Amino acid sequence: MNMDKVLLKYIEGIPAISSDARDAAKARLDNLIKPPGSLGALEGIAIKLAGVTGSVKNDFQKKCVLVMCSDNGVVEEGVASAPQEITYAMAGNFIKGLTGVAVLAKNSGADIKVYDMGINSGEKIPGVIDRKVRKSTNNIKSGPAMERHEAVQGILAGINAVCDAKDEGYELIGAGEMGIGNTTTTTAILSALSGISAEEITGKGAGLNSQAYADKIAVIDAAVKMNAPDVKDPVDLIAKLGGFDIAAMAGAFLGAAYYRLPIVVDGYISIASAYLAAMMNPKVKDYLFLSHVSEEPGYLTYAKLLELEAPLNLNMRLGEGSGCPLMFDVIKSACAVMNEMATFDEALAGSGEEYLNNAKEEVPDGNAG
Amino acid sequence: MNMDKVLLKYIEGIPAISSDARDAAKARLDNLIKPPGSLGALEGIAIKLAGVTGSVKNDFQKKCVLVMCSDNGVVEEGVASAPQEITYAMAGNFIKGLTGVAVLAKNSGADIKVYDMGINSGEKIPGVIDRKVRKSTNNIKSGPAMERHEAVQGILAGINAVCDAKDEGYELIGAGEMGIGNTTTTTAILSALSGISAEEITGKGAGLNSQAYADKIAVIDAAVKMNAPDVKDPVDLIAKLGGFDIAAMAGAFLGAAYYRLPIVVDGYISIASAYLAAMMNPKVKDYLFLSHVSEEPGYLTYAKLLELEAPLNLNMRLGEGSGCPLMFDVIKSACAVMNEMATFDEALAGSGEEYLNNAKEEVPDGNAG
Repeated sequence: MNMDKVLLKYIEGIPAISSDARDAAKARLDNLIKPPGSLGALEGIAIKLAGVTGSVKNDFQKKCVLVMCSDNGVVEEGVASAPQEITYAMAGNFIKGLTGVAVLAKNSGADIKVYDMGINSGEKIPGVIDRKVRKSTNNIKSGPAMERHEAVQGILAGINAVCDAKDEGYELIGAGEMGIGNTTTTTAILSALSGISAEEITGKGAGLNSQAYADKIAVIDAAVKMNAPDVKDPVDLIAKLGGFDIAAMAGAFLGAAYYRLPIVVDGYISIASAYLAAMMNPKVKDYLFLSHVSEEPGYLTYAKLLELEAPLNLNMRLGEGSGCPLMFDVIKSACAVMNEMATFDEALAGSGEEYLNNAKEEVPDGNAG
Repeated sequence: MNMDKVLLKYIEGIPAISSDARDAAKARLDNLIKPPGSLGALEGIAIKLAGVTGSVKNDFQKKCVLVMCSDNGVVEEGVASAPQEITYAMAGNFIKGLTGVAVLAKNSGADIKVYDMGINSGEKIPGVIDRKVRKSTNNIKSGPAMERHEAVQGILAGINAVCDAKDEGYELIGAGEMGIGNTTTTTAILSALSGISAEEITGKGAGLNSQAYADKIAVIDAAVKMNAPDVKDPVDLIAKLGGFDIAAMAGAFLGAAYYRLPIVVDGYISIASAYLAAMMNPKVKDYLFLSHVSEEPGYLTYAKLLELEAPLNLNMRLGEGSGCPLMFDVIKSACAVMNEMATFDEALAGSGEEYLNNAKEEVPDGNAG
């Protein structure tokens, strides 16, 4: 079976968003008792959600973050001082509810679903969903991370994860990851597809000393040169320089668009995967909601490529999907504005009618006052 | 009675934050299973909260936004095309739960308390707390907005509002406003105290045409020149160029510090008031939590003067305190991180101990991986 053909079915099957619902959402927002546009991004989010779901009013009760865990062969180059075993250990900690994303998801009334896409261990982790392509990718400094069919398998697993989430009743999802070494793979992909030197977009992290930082840059440069991926082919980029986490997340973003679910992008690895999905079909962008601007220097380059903006500036760099629940809260607020604010007609109370009726045409002060 | 002396009691009575609790909060955060600092501003917020409350772990169940409503005499110059009656009408709409802040507060599990500080109406609005200094300020183009004792009365009313909120069990508060014409007063104060020309910091709003915009700038310039406030004296700035809404919010920020309650700053008018309070005593800054970067051009100047940053970038310009509930959500997330994430000791599960124990010293990748 040609796996690429199966993937193509999903890529080509992404529906257009509902422009009717978007227009109706915009019209309602402009009719609420406030200067038009004065709730800024909350209004933009509410309009975009309407396009995704086809409904002006939305209320997402069941939410989850998909956490794609996998190991990367490139760690043998010393690009991460954390040992590879941490990926395995943290996968278990997610299930126990002990980590950043687990706590933040619970706080926002969301669940997490943890996937083993390629953790370098033969042991099953209770509660972790096993979709292991194989144990760890290869070292990208010496050759491709994986075979093309493995990349497709990872992407399809991500699509399937969204299909399962939808079947389970989830209405709003997010995608995050855990994988020691995955800022290296993500930066290699960005350098390859943008032509920007690794030096400009490699992060120092919290404790990388000068030598280790220089080594990381050299490894990324060497990996890009050695693998020379087809920069127009996102599957080739993932296969040559990526990881099973990135493959699965790219699949999740693609799957969200295919199954018409709004999906939140977390940080650096997540936005890279979202961009790769958008390379497969630009319609994916209509389903994406950025959350926070990651501290990783390459984040904003990916955001610019996607022509999307993240509303949260929290200097976070944890990964795990930890930014998604924070954005679930912002989305909940945007829905409340749409669902519960009064229109001019509803609110008119015998004074100021003239202004309120004319406010759509002419709004004087930036502030309502 | 010299009102200034009463005010001085509060200004001088602001307690220092607990540096012990801050240190303990930082120590706990650095011991959680994540690279130190990787949750960015969430960690900064959790640490700051500890300083305010004196407790490492916080959980704010009872929250409210104080909405200070007042009218401004300067509207007779045509700086706002909305008629003054809108202030009165919207105060009633807050109570009915129809406006932006009302909906967003409810969504975040917070209440709102609406104050009439100087609405230009003799009618009482059911549900609105009457602390009217008098009906509307004077036109600042022709003279001072109010007498000094009236400014002090407004500030004391704001302090008292916080005292009442604390008595009612509120643990986290925010301050917003409603008052046609108050971006004009706020910009006049900023121009006076910073020396920046009105042209650079006056907002065009959503629909201000070129002539109206030029007129607004001219009015602000004239008001600053005519009143020549003592730019080192925040009470004089409020009396000469401000409004009763600004006086009350400055009082609320001062009162929050005095009564040791964390307080969230909304947008442009709110941050101006916070800065005026911080001019009275810089310790006020330790109790302030910025929410969103307002679209009004002067917002960032005030933020820079305060040396504080707002985590939300939502292009909002509604006022009302509408940014406060969004920040309540972020604060709730920061508390969840502190209260519920596991420490290394708690999480150690037989693998990766060495890394986890050493992670405080050396963190390689920006991402956890």
